[in-house]
Amino acid sequence: MLVLRKPYLLYLGDATVKSDCKTAFGLRDWCRSDVLGEWSHPRGTVTLDLPRLAPKEAAARGAGSIVVGVASTGGVLPDHWQDDLEAALLAGMDAVSGMHTRLESFPRLVRAAAVGGGRLVNVRHPGNSHQVASGRKRAGKRVLTVGTDCALGKKYTALAIARALGGAGVPATFRATGQTGIMIAGSGIPIDATISDFIAGAAEELSPDNAPDHWDVIEGQGSLYHPAYAAVTLGLLHGSQADAIVLCHDPQRITIEEYPDFPIPPLPEVIDFYLRAGRLTNRAIRCVGLSINSSALGDAAWNDYRHRLERELSLPVCDPLRTGVAPLVAGLLLP
Amino acid sequence: MLVLRKPYLLYLGDATVKSDCKTAFGLRDWCRSDVLGEWSHPRGTVTLDLPRLAPKEAAARGAGSIVVGVASTGGVLPDHWQDDLEAALLAGMDAVSGMHTRLESFPRLVRAAAVGGGRLVNVRHPGNSHQVASGRKRAGKRVLTVGTDCALGKKYTALAIARALGGAGVPATFRATGQTGIMIAGSGIPIDATISDFIAGAAEELSPDNAPDHWDVIEGQGSLYHPAYAAVTLGLLHGSQADAIVLCHDPQRITIEEYPDFPIPPLPEVIDFYLRAGRLTNRAIRCVGLSINSSALGDAAWNDYRHRLERELSLPVCDPLRTGVAPLVAGLLLP
Repeated sequence: MLVLRKPYLLYLGDATVKSDCKTAFGLRDWCRSDVLGEWSHPRGTVTLDLPRLAPKEAAARGAGSIVVGVASTGGVLPDHWQDDLEAALLAGMDAVSGMHTRLESFPRLVRAAAVGGGRLVNVRHPGNSHQVASGRKRAGKRVLTVGTDCALGKKYTALAIARALGGAGVPATFRATGQTGIMIAGSGIPIDATISDFIAGAAEELSPDNAPDHWDVIEGQGSLYHPAYAAVTLGLLHGSQADAIVLCHDPQRITIEEYPDFPIPPLPEVIDFYLRAGRLTNRAIRCVGLSINSSALGDAAWNDYRHRLERELSLPVCDPLRTGVAPLVAGLLLP
Repeated sequence: MLVLRKPYLLYLGDATVKSDCKTAFGLRDWCRSDVLGEWSHPRGTVTLDLPRLAPKEAAARGAGSIVVGVASTGGVLPDHWQDDLEAALLAGMDAVSGMHTRLESFPRLVRAAAVGGGRLVNVRHPGNSHQVASGRKRAGKRVLTVGTDCALGKKYTALAIARALGGAGVPATFRATGQTGIMIAGSGIPIDATISDFIAGAAEELSPDNAPDHWDVIEGQGSLYHPAYAAVTLGLLHGSQADAIVLCHDPQRITIEEYPDFPIPPLPEVIDFYLRAGRLTNRAIRCVGLSINSSALGDAAWNDYRHRLERELSLPVCDPLRTGVAPLVAGLLLP
């Protein structure tokens, strides 16, 4: 399991477009108390409205890591970004990146880490090896967010459920399986980067035995209907031994994104297939509701869509941004 | 894709038990014409009844690789085995191993390969990186052997079908996904060693576009009912875009091997689930029959079992060792 050193200094490079800084905004929104401040190159214009701290100053205030919170083009790390990461490393901090390109490929950063004693952490790449899954039933409860496709709110939904459970006094832990999620949680396993034989084993490791009333809220990946990534989804589902799933969907998505020949089936069929697959490692698996990314729908259309779906599926239908996730949480806590 | 250099010299170490040399016997039985001979340490007593050739002599006769055809204990490569591999490498051959331990971890072999110019090939480890699956339909036909569990005849069945297709004048290629299969075929992809995101992509690469009447006969791995390996099975199924599957089963297997809490479901349910999962990338997928490992059954019991299953499933039921695979091949060739 990757474990990061908090608190963070969020690095924005010289970004001028907010959407290039999704990682930084996600960290600000979901683990604000773990973030000391932000830093960027003078040419950058994006801000998170957090205190500006130069790396050296952040280190003096106890920052554990500088986190690259901005997408770079083609995995290139511009020289002036390297200046800032180098300064943080020389001050003893870790440098954390979700880029495909490993930080070790930049000699200046390798030297600076050696001098400062910090680590170069590549969240996209697994830090260690995993065991073959045992299939052994673990103590505690687990909910996994699953999807009709990639990139339609599985991470956001899991974070919202974990927060709502905590708010209701239920012990709960968000379990991260992707790079941004791992940065938010401060630990996790980039499940799609594991060796195929060990996917389910890695998922078992991610949510170990816990108190009987504790919920692990596990960030889903991919989709059982994705022609490239369904294997990742299945391994994660099996290793999670999910007691419950929440199906995430975007009504605008008619086919798998970038795969126009792969239509998304009717939602009842999708739920049935997830439950059938999940039953292998947890016979009591159930679907507690749907999380819809309804950003394209006006209020009337959303209400219409939601009520129609609730009638059709006999399950609660939420949009975390619009309605919150209380009905999903209520479903989890049903005896 | 891993590509090996044939013909082979099969190396038996100092084995005294035949079952330790399954790889070597498999190669002798399935690619005899690619094998020049065998070699072993004087203390060894197992023989394949092939010409004995010292490494240097084999190299002089054109051998491309020395293949470790014997299981070593705990991944250790005894010194006197290293003597023989070193001699082969110094004579310019490749050394091929299916051990977990990489050949590169033995300095003598690294040096000998550098001198001789040959390669150290670790069949269990992927030789290169793969693409994300495209889902694009490829020309040619594909049959995949699938199973209720691991280790019950998927490789053997695929080899038998490929051989029978060839014997019937149908163009066919055995596509290997595991270490012994790769040694037999001389090329392939160890699918369970690929990075999770690329399983289906690797399977696509393994069986590229081909002539419309050509069959790729793909060696299956794992089982959709295996709590640790189902993800590998699903990725291989999706990337293969199988037109047909053959279900392999051992009637003695009541639960997944080494997982006594995981019962094997009734076979009609197993077939239905494989077809449902496979439909994602090939809507015309069908099951052409069953391949049964019936070694535990006497003739009367086998006939009884077979006829009962054929009636229940309305599909041909074979044991490649007992009946051959003609009914499976006939099913593939149905218009």
